[in-house]
Amino acid sequence: MNVRIVEVGPRDGLQNESRPIPTEAKIAFVDALSEAGYEEIEVTAFVSPKWVPQLADAEEVLREIRRREGVLYSALVPNEQGLARALAARVGKIAVFTAASETFNRKNINASIDESIERFRPVLAGAREAHLPVRGYVSTAFWCPYEGKMMPSAVVPVARRLLDLGVDEISIGDTIGKAVPADVHALLDALLDAVPQDALAMHFHDTYGTGVANALAAYDRGITIFDASAGGVGGCPYAPGAAGNVATEDLLWALKSSGASVSLDLDRVSAASDILATALGRPLRSRVREALRGARGSTGAPGES
Amino acid sequence: MNVRIVEVGPRDGLQNESRPIPTEAKIAFVDALSEAGYEEIEVTAFVSPKWVPQLADAEEVLREIRRREGVLYSALVPNEQGLARALAARVGKIAVFTAASETFNRKNINASIDESIERFRPVLAGAREAHLPVRGYVSTAFWCPYEGKMMPSAVVPVARRLLDLGVDEISIGDTIGKAVPADVHALLDALLDAVPQDALAMHFHDTYGTGVANALAAYDRGITIFDASAGGVGGCPYAPGAAGNVATEDLLWALKSSGASVSLDLDRVSAASDILATALGRPLRSRVREALRGARGSTGAPGES
Repeated sequence: MNVRIVEVGPRDGLQNESRPIPTEAKIAFVDALSEAGYEEIEVTAFVSPKWVPQLADAEEVLREIRRREGVLYSALVPNEQGLARALAARVGKIAVFTAASETFNRKNINASIDESIERFRPVLAGAREAHLPVRGYVSTAFWCPYEGKMMPSAVVPVARRLLDLGVDEISIGDTIGKAVPADVHALLDALLDAVPQDALAMHFHDTYGTGVANALAAYDRGITIFDASAGGVGGCPYAPGAAGNVATEDLLWALKSSGASVSLDLDRVSAASDILATALGRPLRSRVREALRGARGSTGAPGES
Repeated sequence: MNVRIVEVGPRDGLQNESRPIPTEAKIAFVDALSEAGYEEIEVTAFVSPKWVPQLADAEEVLREIRRREGVLYSALVPNEQGLARALAARVGKIAVFTAASETFNRKNINASIDESIERFRPVLAGAREAHLPVRGYVSTAFWCPYEGKMMPSAVVPVARRLLDLGVDEISIGDTIGKAVPADVHALLDALLDAVPQDALAMHFHDTYGTGVANALAAYDRGITIFDASAGGVGGCPYAPGAAGNVATEDLLWALKSSGASVSLDLDRVSAASDILATALGRPLRSRVREALRGARGSTGAPGES
């Protein structure tokens, strides 16, 4: 099957890095990603710098990157002000976000699920007017740091409502990385009855080392859109020091080895990760990256051993 | 299902670490593992120190560890001399090894598969006389660094011959870590027709990040014995710097989260890993370990950040 990997490293990855990354490094990172064959790169978020200081340079990054034809450069937007900024910065797609967990929504964005979805209405209207496709994130779809295990019955109606509002694609997030393949199957059993398969993306974190296993389970169920971050950058606010999004290199390697067709160049993804390893001054967390570097006898980027 | 994890860190893990580990650290590591609830710990190998200098202290380690009742302390033995040393060191189980790949066998132990199996005969006779159970490793069961992808038809007859010779348990090894779940299913399709399910152990490496995915796929097929190394110690001689055996912490977490019953204490396994992190002076490679340390705000052992 043809699989599309959506690169979320510049946004979800860097948002969760405690060390600030220079804007030039972000631009170089996105430019290197653009050479790797992605159809879509989530570049940044137009949220308040008070909430996410790591992404305060959203405008500058989107202004300075070299845009490659055929690549969608997207950004997360929480509200109409965010949309106005995103449109001015000429994004190619926007993403809105809510969670399956009421408690998580209240703590994360100080709104109930209903309130968060109401906020989307004018955002979606504006995006439609600008002919921008819209992705909707449903986070804490498997586990919530406050409520514990989430039932599929909590996730399906949220995904369904986003689609009914006009969202084009739903990304189902294992925010704290506690899902295992059995959970993926249970959720997809329910979700695939309610949501068209080709409108579903899966967004796994590798916090507990199950990111690749979960993605392969979803691929077995016909899912063909996956989120990942180059080099596995990012982390988990609920377990500082833990791994972030599943590494693009690991996901790409596993999917291709499982017969998937993915138009993404592993070496170029890894070259983009080099830029971040240098900027972060720490080794990255992709097994495939380590293996390829070892097999080549590479000494890698500064910060890695 | 009840699952048994066989700890192979002291042998397969340390054998592949380039930095020498002091004998006292190995003893402390095994002693800490003994407190974690394992039924079986592969402590060392009675091979020539010329081949594997890292395990030249086999006798001393087995003499100095505190043996806990109910734990089998095993060792790898290549031949009758190795068996004599192992018996003198009072091991509770031995392991013999061959490969599914002719080329790998020739390069690794300078013998054909047939010759390697012929060498087992007197070893197995001696073990039987001493009432010791015997494990047989079949390495390169999925991929060979020289021959490439291995077909199940190359693996099944080797496993069958070992069983026919009197080996009690077969451990099927993904030596270079290139298997994906689809490969696991394909091999088990063939193997489970020829070998009793409860005589099969699976031995996955995490070189390319698929160790947990592969183990969960095998668990879905009824496999209940898995090899792993605490903290994911070890590496890959074919990709220096790459990950080693799947980390015990990651495997244990994934299996328990998938409903398996495993009588092993995650915190105590991780405490055993601390000893190695200090001795190796480098961070270990278990995602679960990182997540638990982060969630606790632990600063970890020296060598880890």
